[in-house]
Amino acid sequence: MAVPGHRLDRMFNPKTVVVIGDKGPGYMWLNSNMPFKQKGGNLYSVQLDPKEIEGIEKLGVQNFTSLADVPGEVDYAVVAVPRQVSPFVLKDLIAKKANGAGFFTSGFAETGEELGIKLQDQLTQMAREANFNLVGPNCMGLYLPKVGVRFSADAAVANDGKIGFLSQSGTHGIMFSLVSAANGLHVSRCASFGNAVVLDVSDYVEYLAADDETEVIGMYVEGVKDGRRFFRVLREACAKKPVVVWKGGQTEAGARATRSHTGSLAAPQSVWDGMMRQCGAITTNSLDETIDVMKALLLTKAPKGDGMALLAQTGGQSVSITDAFAKAGFSVPRFTDATYAELQGFFNIIGGSYQNPLDMGGTIAGNLEVLDRILRIVDADPNIDGMAMELSAMFAARQWKHKPETLDQMLDAIRVHMDRSAKPFVVILHPAHEEEYIGSIKPKFNERQIPVFASFDRAAAAMARVRAYGQR
Amino acid sequence: MAVPGHRLDRMFNPKTVVVIGDKGPGYMWLNSNMPFKQKGGNLYSVQLDPKEIEGIEKLGVQNFTSLADVPGEVDYAVVAVPRQVSPFVLKDLIAKKANGAGFFTSGFAETGEELGIKLQDQLTQMAREANFNLVGPNCMGLYLPKVGVRFSADAAVANDGKIGFLSQSGTHGIMFSLVSAANGLHVSRCASFGNAVVLDVSDYVEYLAADDETEVIGMYVEGVKDGRRFFRVLREACAKKPVVVWKGGQTEAGARATRSHTGSLAAPQSVWDGMMRQCGAITTNSLDETIDVMKALLLTKAPKGDGMALLAQTGGQSVSITDAFAKAGFSVPRFTDATYAELQGFFNIIGGSYQNPLDMGGTIAGNLEVLDRILRIVDADPNIDGMAMELSAMFAARQWKHKPETLDQMLDAIRVHMDRSAKPFVVILHPAHEEEYIGSIKPKFNERQIPVFASFDRAAAAMARVRAYGQR
Repeated sequence: MAVPGHRLDRMFNPKTVVVIGDKGPGYMWLNSNMPFKQKGGNLYSVQLDPKEIEGIEKLGVQNFTSLADVPGEVDYAVVAVPRQVSPFVLKDLIAKKANGAGFFTSGFAETGEELGIKLQDQLTQMAREANFNLVGPNCMGLYLPKVGVRFSADAAVANDGKIGFLSQSGTHGIMFSLVSAANGLHVSRCASFGNAVVLDVSDYVEYLAADDETEVIGMYVEGVKDGRRFFRVLREACAKKPVVVWKGGQTEAGARATRSHTGSLAAPQSVWDGMMRQCGAITTNSLDETIDVMKALLLTKAPKGDGMALLAQTGGQSVSITDAFAKAGFSVPRFTDATYAELQGFFNIIGGSYQNPLDMGGTIAGNLEVLDRILRIVDADPNIDGMAMELSAMFAARQWKHKPETLDQMLDAIRVHMDRSAKPFVVILHPAHEEEYIGSIKPKFNERQIPVFASFDRAAAAMARVRAYGQR
Repeated sequence: MAVPGHRLDRMFNPKTVVVIGDKGPGYMWLNSNMPFKQKGGNLYSVQLDPKEIEGIEKLGVQNFTSLADVPGEVDYAVVAVPRQVSPFVLKDLIAKKANGAGFFTSGFAETGEELGIKLQDQLTQMAREANFNLVGPNCMGLYLPKVGVRFSADAAVANDGKIGFLSQSGTHGIMFSLVSAANGLHVSRCASFGNAVVLDVSDYVEYLAADDETEVIGMYVEGVKDGRRFFRVLREACAKKPVVVWKGGQTEAGARATRSHTGSLAAPQSVWDGMMRQCGAITTNSLDETIDVMKALLLTKAPKGDGMALLAQTGGQSVSITDAFAKAGFSVPRFTDATYAELQGFFNIIGGSYQNPLDMGGTIAGNLEVLDRILRIVDADPNIDGMAMELSAMFAARQWKHKPETLDQMLDAIRVHMDRSAKPFVVILHPAHEEEYIGSIKPKFNERQIPVFASFDRAAAAMARVRAYGQR
């Protein structure tokens, strides 16, 4: 939904989008935004070059040689012109009373060059004076999967996005959206905001905190302009919904790299870390960690305590899954005697163990009734606050490949368990020698919204972050 | 090659292998060992059950109802009989003067049951008295890919194995062999040794340290019987070749799990860690870390210093790769002025950076000559001890999928660079939204023996372990 009255609201819910300066042969921006047109949005082009106009009109997009000629109100514009031209385009956007624009154009302060710095100052001053919503420059701009505004032709069009994602890096913004979609999770609204000369991360966080389509906020930031304001806005956002913050430039060398990237000046990492703790943000260190914690936040419940039941398929894995969760701060408690008494019937003492961890051995292979009984029994144990279950492609893949319905049936059984249980449940699917096959069956997990992780360590780390968030 | 005179030498270089007690319909052990027969080894079966004998003979394997009848000397036997029968089989093996046997049979001390403990004691005493090479019990036994002795029908047959791998867990032994093969690395000799009642990890390490086909030793251990001896043998092995030790049961909960798994009693983790440091072993915490460090050890050179050149495809990734390597203890130094002067010609200052990290932007896309020049220039820089390069499936996959030869050509160029350079070079191929595609092109990297990692963190961790090993 919208956030009426917020200065970014028109831009985040656009009816008219204009692409300024797109070029053939790819017409990357017009092609990326074609779903917006297909969904009934007004997509226009502004381009002076007669050679390009022909290609644009072939796409079925109406072109204007001047922004002033575009009919009606402009909610959002994508600016892809050379840097020297960008102040003239901004002047036109302001004159047109456009709500905002993403400046894909780069070559500003991040180059360290005099001309780049001067041009950036000029854009900044113009936009500030006009109170214009300048996204960037040096960015990929907005990605609004529901209305079809996209920063990449690979990005999904989706109505079920729950993650508001903000990124100072275009790559990380796009990658987050692609990797989250591959994991069955979609974005509600995303902004790649690069040099952040006018609108800074705080402005976007404020919007996403109020946006009721956004259940979780995530961000990749290299630095913020106004630390005091960011601190206040972040704290308010964290009080409303989980906020995951991945900081780029955590090391001295990394911080140096951010200067050539987005011209960011970073605070010392220890100050930053303290600020995150005080706000109650969930911190991560990479794209993988960020995706993993989103998966845990959105696809399963939060553990109410530290006691995990761990279900592995062999003895060796039962040791490894236990080490991973114990290192992440969980306990792996004994079950109650009542649980052991009930489990006894399902386990053969040779080649399996029904301690916690459970070495399921061949117990569950192809026997969904037994799996369901074990899940029910363990779920009911008062010592247990959540479950993690190994699925080994090494053992199961041959069966699954031969009879794909056995995988579907098992995942249905897991879904049934997850729906009836009040406790978190996660799956670990490995190992990587089946990379191609695992990639091919991932959609089966996604369809059923089953949180599946690539390793014990990654599952444990994601669960630990969610647990710590719940303990605030 | 062999290690003449070593007590395990016949078993590790078998001419005759006997499978005792295999069962249909799968005949898992005979099927797994069929390559041994195809390569000219003598593969026999011992089975009393007439129903099974028919199935065994259909496989083309000669069956005997008594081990005594097997012609010639027995170098290695796989024992897959019920636990109560196992002492009788061991008696026959000793009488036959077999060199050794892997006891797949389980249900011993790891169950905590009186009967299991008693049977294990019986096996132990018999084998000790006869100086018999009992592998296990409760294990998968030997995997000798060159001669075709295998503990799984999925395990590779390969002549180029360089990794000696030892595992107290059958799963981890098999998984290591499968995942390493999927990464283009093979095992020279592997032993899964379970409860280790007679032969302990020290015996195997001693053999692998002397074995000149084994360039690197790896192991998964949950506990050792004679710590003093293990310490001595490990130190001697580490003096000869890199030894990677993955300890299972590092946490209190994990150690509890090892007791039900292999009946191991673990030393406190801090004592163990100190022992590893003193020996000069490389320690890891998971299968992934173990595979990664093997890849770095075998497929690239060791860095002679801490200075890494980092080559990313975008600005955001250049920050992330820098954070990852800096956190792992590397420096990301400035290049010399001479290097910058040379690089200048190849980089457009807008939308790319040729600091270190290098934001290659579109610079190398499809231009292998430019890539080659950059690799040469950076390689020659005296501040640089190694290179890590991002390949982003996000950008490149569309080109690679459309024109697969462009990927081949780029990998050939990287191979040429690696052959002429004295410094380590690793590749990071991501992100995971292209899991299936990445899995499908992995063989192209493997064929060329290019070390490729799934994330910046994993590459940096592997390189840091190799660096620390070199600094001992």
